[in-house]
Parts: sequence; C-alpha cells; structure tokens
Amino acid sequence: MQPRRISILGVGLLGGSIGLALRSRAKDCQITGYGHRKSTLDAALQIKAIDQGYDQLAPAVAGADLVILCTPVGLIRSLLAEIGPLLAPGAIVTDVGSTKRSIVEAAEQSLPPTAHFVGSHPMAGSEKRGVQYSRADLYDGALCIITPTPRSNPDALNQVESFWRLLGMKTCHLSPQEHDRRLADISHLPHALAAALISVQDDPTLALAGKGFLDVTRIAAGDGALWRDILIDNRDNVRQSIAKLQQELEMLQSLLEPDQAQMLQAWLDEAAQRREGMREKNG
Amino acid sequence: MQPRRISILGVGLLGGSIGLALRSRAKDCQITGYGHRKSTLDAALQIKAIDQGYDQLAPAVAGADLVILCTPVGLIRSLLAEIGPLLAPGAIVTDVGSTKRSIVEAAEQSLPPTAHFVGSHPMAGSEKRGVQYSRADLYDGALCIITPTPRSNPDALNQVESFWRLLGMKTCHLSPQEHDRRLADISHLPHALAAALISVQDDPTLALAGKGFLDVTRIAAGDGALWRDILIDNRDNVRQSIAKLQQELEMLQSLLEPDQAQMLQAWLDEAAQRREGMREKNG
Repeated sequence: MQPRRISILGVGLLGGSIGLALRSRAKDCQITGYGHRKSTLDAALQIKAIDQGYDQLAPAVAGADLVILCTPVGLIRSLLAEIGPLLAPGAIVTDVGSTKRSIVEAAEQSLPPTAHFVGSHPMAGSEKRGVQYSRADLYDGALCIITPTPRSNPDALNQVESFWRLLGMKTCHLSPQEHDRRLADISHLPHALAAALISVQDDPTLALAGKGFLDVTRIAAGDGALWRDILIDNRDNVRQSIAKLQQELEMLQSLLEPDQAQMLQAWLDEAAQRREGMREKNG
Repeated sequence: MQPRRISILGVGLLGGSIGLALRSRAKDCQITGYGHRKSTLDAALQIKAIDQGYDQLAPAVAGADLVILCTPVGLIRSLLAEIGPLLAPGAIVTDVGSTKRSIVEAAEQSLPPTAHFVGSHPMAGSEKRGVQYSRADLYDGALCIITPTPRSNPDALNQVESFWRLLGMKTCHLSPQEHDRRLADISHLPHALAAALISVQDDPTLALAGKGFLDVTRIAAGDGALWRDILIDNRDNVRQSIAKLQQELEMLQSLLEPDQAQMLQAWLDEAAQRREGMREKNG
C-alpha cells in the first residue's frame, strides 16, 4: 500500500518513527498528526515526522486513507469511539497497541461499516519515550504481528500488511486471542519480571549490579502508565504466564541440590542453547 | 602491587583477559598459565595472554608472587588443595570465583601458613567462553568485590586490591557471607530467571521475541556447567532469593486488577526510576 494521506493519532516515539520511516520510503504522502500537547506536535513538525499537526481529531483524520492509532493502549478504545463519525468512506484503520483482543473488539463494535479496521502490533520500540527519540529505521527488520478476524476486509488486510512491509517490517498473522496469549509469555511476563527483579533488591545490593543485571532489567525502565495498561488489559493471560514461571521456579528450587547437579546443568544447557539459537537484533 | 611473576590457573576468557590487561599495564611481569588442554594453552600463547603455558601445576606456580585461580567455581577448591605444597613462601593467592564462602573457607583450610589467600570476585565477564574472546579491557571500569576475613593478611589484602586497580577496576570489600547473600540477589537469581524465562516459552512463541526479550535473556546463553556450580554452591542464598521473587510475583498477581491500576503503576514507576538511576556499563 502506498497511502496518499495518512493520519497518525499520537505522535510519540512510535507515531513519530512511522512518520520518519514513511517520509524516507514513500513519495507524495501527506502525513497528518494528532496529539494533545502543542509542544509534542511542534517537535514532530520540527523533525519532519508530520506535515500538519492538530489537537482536534476531525481535521487530523479528514480525508485520510490510512489512520494509525499510536497512543498508549489505554487510550486506543476511546479514540476508536471518537473517530468513527469522522472517517472518510473506505478509510483503513490500524493501530500499534501491544494488546489486541480488546482493541480489535472495540474497533469492530465502534467503527462504521464504511471503515475497515485491522489490528497490528509492530514489535519495535525503546525504553525511551517521546517523539524526539523517533527514528526512521525503528521498524526496519522487526516483526509486525497482524491480527485479522473473520470480519476483517481482505483488501484492508492486504493494504495494512503492505504498509508495514513498506516500512521494512516482516509480518505474520495471529488471531487477536493467540496474539495476546503468546505476547503475555514473550513480552508482558518479561517486563513484569524485570520490574520484580529490581523491586526485590535493596540499594546496597543494587550498587553491585554488573552488565548482566543491566541487560536483564533494561526493559523495566519503560513507561509505567503504558505498561500498567498493557498488564491490566491482558491480565488473564499475564496471570497464567506468571503462574507458569512460578511453577518453573518451584521446579528449579528442587534442582538446587548437589545430587541434582546433572539435571540442573541439563536445564541450564537447554536454555542456553535455545537462547543461542535466537538472532540478535539491532536497535 | 606490581607482581613480577604471576601465575594464572585456568586460561579461559577471564584468565586470558587478566594476562592481556596485565601486559598492557605492567612492565617486566612474567605471566605463566596453567590449563588442561594444549590447544587452550597454545591459543593463550598465540594472543600473548601468557608467556609460558603448562599442563602441570608445579612449574606453573613455581616462584610466582601472585597466583590467580581462574577456573570455574567447581574446580577452585580442589585446585587450592593441590597448589598448597607447590607455592613459593610468601606467595599471594586470589581467585575470580562468583561465589566466595566455600572458596575462602577451603583456602584458609588448605593453604600453608606461608601463603596468603584473599578472595576476589571481579564482576566482569561475557556470555562468550574461551581464551579467544579475551580482551585487555574486560576488567576496565568494572567492580571487583574483595572478601577479606579476620584471618586475612593485611599486606596481602592491600596487594590484591592494588592488583585489580592496576587492571582498571574499582574495588570494594564485603565479607564472604555478605558477598554470597547479595550476589544471589543481583547475579545468581537474574541468571536463573533468564533461563526460566526461556524454559517456559514454546517454540512458536519464542519466534515472536523482540529486542526486549533478547536483552532479558542474554545472560542465559552462558556456560551451563559454570552456572550449575555457582547455583549449587550458593544454594541456600539462591533459594532465599528465588523465594523473595516468588513473593513479589504473588504481590504482582494481586495488582493485576483494574481497581489496583494506581498501585500497579506506582510499582512499575518505582522500578523504572531505580533502573534509570543505574549507570549503563560498557562491554
């Protein structure tokens, strides 16, 4: 898809990076941004992530053939309800939210039949926040999970997929339910664990942290409000992921004996091998 | 301390990096290496991490004023028993083990009164293994925890501390007991958690991993046998660290409700702030 007029609702790191990426990869595309704060819109304009910035939704989405919701997860549902009456006929709508079930459900309920929603989760980001950290290559080479449902318009699905590929992303499809279940394990649990691992340290111990600890906890420096919304929105899956990890830790406790050394090593070796099989990513 | 003849027992990544660092920072120091495998000794000689390599302990420690045990934790105790009769009078002995109580205890029991042991834990390393990954700057800027006891010789303590500082390290002192307790929290628990976090993933989910997951689990790619020994040697403390984390996860489960959103955010924000206050380290 080569959109002619794109509307980015929420110009933070993710929205701003879409603007920059699009500008470097697509010709003749008007990029409109929507945000609450004038300072954010000004910063987005200054780095040329957007062509026009609005603090009102109506002018921001007017005439857009592609609307991308880039606000934190907790704001996407109310935004979907608000933009419904404002969308051009045939407009395609997607989002960048880290959870998908509740967002896709809200979109299918609140958007008019003349608009076509397809949920997306581009798996790119940073623990840094704000449009000033936007990068034209943030999405390049990363994976975007697209979450169609039986109600998705096939042409809209194709166009959303083409759009992320235009930005350099690899794509795959999962149902919103499967997305949320798998992401609880691979993303939401690690985030919660990184925060928990910091919380259990006292300050003198934290002062002894080496490079390994810094790696393990880097994602915990993210935005608390953003992750609050993700963890609560996906809480049934996150609870199960935590429970699974707790069972694994119980099992590990039983391996911490000299006569279990062989089993412990096998457990560590398997984890090491699976980790070594994973490709390191840039960014 | 400017050692004139140093003996490195175990020339892997840590031992080899000591050799390289010493060569770039100390003049006229003979560096002797001990290792089981001829290929390892040859590789260490080739990168000039050592001047002579031996597969026998007697020539490796003969005449050394400083002996550094750089084998995995599980081998250090038996090595201490073996080198006792071979050490030159007045020799200072230290080690790089990630646990300290059992090593310091073994050293104080098995070394002759004419030798002086002071335990060290230079907090530098890599998930890579082998002398070929040695780097002259591996220790530069990192922290070395030195673990004297009431029986430690004050002059030997000073000399060991000066040695690590010569390699560019910052130093601090903890008792072996306090070292093991704090390291269980800040190092051994994170390692176990990183492995557990991989173990709970199925393969299709692992394929969805983003940069954050790669960061969190990077240390799990380490040497299984090495970490088996560390976790088992320090199992009483590691058990308590795991139990503390399990309690934190129980508490987190109770925060995963919409009416607990404010508490959840406060918990996430505090972890984020503490993480942001930590200095990122090179390497």
